[in-house]
Amino acid sequence: MGEERRAVEETLEAAARAAEQARELQDAAAALLSRTWAEEESLRRRAAVLGEELARLRKAAAHADSDKIEEDLDRATCLISDGDIATILPSKAHGAFLKLILGPVNLRARKEVQLKVKEEYNTYRDRTAVVFLGFPMILLFLRSWLWNGCFPALPVQLYQAWLLFLYTTLALRENILRVNGSDIRPWWVCHHYCAMLMALVSLTWEIKGQPDCARKQRGVELFLCWAVMQGFAMMLQNRYQRQRLYTRIALGKAKRMDVVWGETAGVEGQLLLLCPVLFLLQVFEGYVGFLLLRTAHKGIIPEWQVVVCGILLIAMAIGNFANTVDTLVVKSRFKAKMKKSKSKRDLAACTSPTGSSLTNSAAGA
Amino acid sequence: MGEERRAVEETLEAAARAAEQARELQDAAAALLSRTWAEEESLRRRAAVLGEELARLRKAAAHADSDKIEEDLDRATCLISDGDIATILPSKAHGAFLKLILGPVNLRARKEVQLKVKEEYNTYRDRTAVVFLGFPMILLFLRSWLWNGCFPALPVQLYQAWLLFLYTTLALRENILRVNGSDIRPWWVCHHYCAMLMALVSLTWEIKGQPDCARKQRGVELFLCWAVMQGFAMMLQNRYQRQRLYTRIALGKAKRMDVVWGETAGVEGQLLLLCPVLFLLQVFEGYVGFLLLRTAHKGIIPEWQVVVCGILLIAMAIGNFANTVDTLVVKSRFKAKMKKSKSKRDLAACTSPTGSSLTNSAAGA
Repeated sequence: MGEERRAVEETLEAAARAAEQARELQDAAAALLSRTWAEEESLRRRAAVLGEELARLRKAAAHADSDKIEEDLDRATCLISDGDIATILPSKAHGAFLKLILGPVNLRARKEVQLKVKEEYNTYRDRTAVVFLGFPMILLFLRSWLWNGCFPALPVQLYQAWLLFLYTTLALRENILRVNGSDIRPWWVCHHYCAMLMALVSLTWEIKGQPDCARKQRGVELFLCWAVMQGFAMMLQNRYQRQRLYTRIALGKAKRMDVVWGETAGVEGQLLLLCPVLFLLQVFEGYVGFLLLRTAHKGIIPEWQVVVCGILLIAMAIGNFANTVDTLVVKSRFKAKMKKSKSKRDLAACTSPTGSSLTNSAAGA
Repeated sequence: MGEERRAVEETLEAAARAAEQARELQDAAAALLSRTWAEEESLRRRAAVLGEELARLRKAAAHADSDKIEEDLDRATCLISDGDIATILPSKAHGAFLKLILGPVNLRARKEVQLKVKEEYNTYRDRTAVVFLGFPMILLFLRSWLWNGCFPALPVQLYQAWLLFLYTTLALRENILRVNGSDIRPWWVCHHYCAMLMALVSLTWEIKGQPDCARKQRGVELFLCWAVMQGFAMMLQNRYQRQRLYTRIALGKAKRMDVVWGETAGVEGQLLLLCPVLFLLQVFEGYVGFLLLRTAHKGIIPEWQVVVCGILLIAMAIGNFANTVDTLVVKSRFKAKMKKSKSKRDLAACTSPTGSSLTNSAAGA
């Protein structure tokens, strides 16, 4: 009996001690948070002042035409926009899309997490590319082999719903990458908005059955052909991008200044393969869009969905083409600049771990 | 000429100085980050040790039956799970949904932002509830007034697409609130997954036109009736929830310990109105589901979409009912405990700013 009471008393004491420790911990955490906040605030103020000074100097330097000035300004801008200080600065505008869907939440990752986010994004693309390519191929195969030339509605709609899901997640993840300093071109994100819209519209698109379904399902067939082609483009790009990132990480660890060079050198050969394929696919994308419009115009499938999908495909093809060309131009200009510049170090440092150029991009899969 | 050169030289010097300042700023930021990280790490270790001790004491206290021990343990647990230390601790598991859609990004907000996130979530619900209720009412009105008893496909599909968007964003935002310490019941989030699925399925649901469209469009009509009712439930809940949050904030600033009491006291009257309405709406939800199933069974609309929507509606009605009842039970039990407890202070402190109970909940709109 006495022993039991002693045990209770011991627990009583231990509980009181634990409560006391919890309060101490709470106070320590509160102190740390407010101290960190104050120090960050002071750094933020310094960064803001320096940012203004840099803007002023850029204007002044416009007349000076001095490489040295330009280099110094570039170096300073890089450090502010991409160094450790960047994680403290108020994050880049989230953009309307993220705000609309997620609300005012902070999506800025710590520096050490950013590479992981990018890596996970690549894995996600890898895994989904298989479905993207495989699903419509199976559908097209089964149509002639099992379904007597007639798609049943459900499997096609499943694929369309999956496409809507995929493009929504890609658009979200790319917006998050942008918040974390990636330089994905706005167009490739916009391209995914278009694709989202197309997937949504295609879901409402009635899939007619017998009789004469081959004629009536011409639009669906074209849509699936586009999907096969897009899945193919995605796989090619992923290969290219992954190798590029790996080269980057490997070299980045070994010798940071070589990062930008190494990355291009390692995959130059692949780029030669990638570019013509991408252009070919873009032409095909536009052509499918044109075929859809013609089908609608001829009155074979008079539904508005076919017209909208056709217009979207053509718009995406044009946008993709323009942006791929522009990316290649910028890439070669950057290379020329790097050759000219004597201090490559700070420019190289400015390419953030989540950066990208032709990669998230290309046919914009 | 000399003046121009002097200007260039000045800019040159200023640029070098700016680059130097940027490097200093970068070093200061790096130092601050690593220092903060180290201090946080040590706090995390202390919290982990304390957490283990608390778990041990809880076991020991099970035999002791002492109010004092229980209070101390509750207080300590509250401080760890809800105090400033919580913002430093590794965040709660994100859940499969967020990981699937957003990837491995950090969604934990600072303490001072959490209330803003919740507030924004409420505003979002307020704004969308108007559309939720108004859109289907306009559709139903126009059908008899303008469209001769026949829905055209496009406006209905627009509403369905909007529903899909709405439920996706709600599910995302609620998952984010959960990560930030809200105690939304898992069911209400699950309810939104069901609703997402239903909106998606309804999109593929073909809306047949003349002749005899009144009969063929019976399913769509029932769906829109459900939507009107759901929009009504959402508005009621929003009113209730907003008043509850305001009371909470106002009292929280004035006198923290009264928060939980104040919140219930302020809206007790409304709860008396809300509950019967919610139960009525849940019964109606199940009834609409039943009607859909009967329509499909009688072969009026043999599409699988009607069956799936019917089953989903009934499942949601049952789940909503069970969870509303359970919430009311927990609420009254908590009230009884608060009356018994002598030190209300720390228990009250434990209700997080993003907390909720009947609110995000109720008919689960």
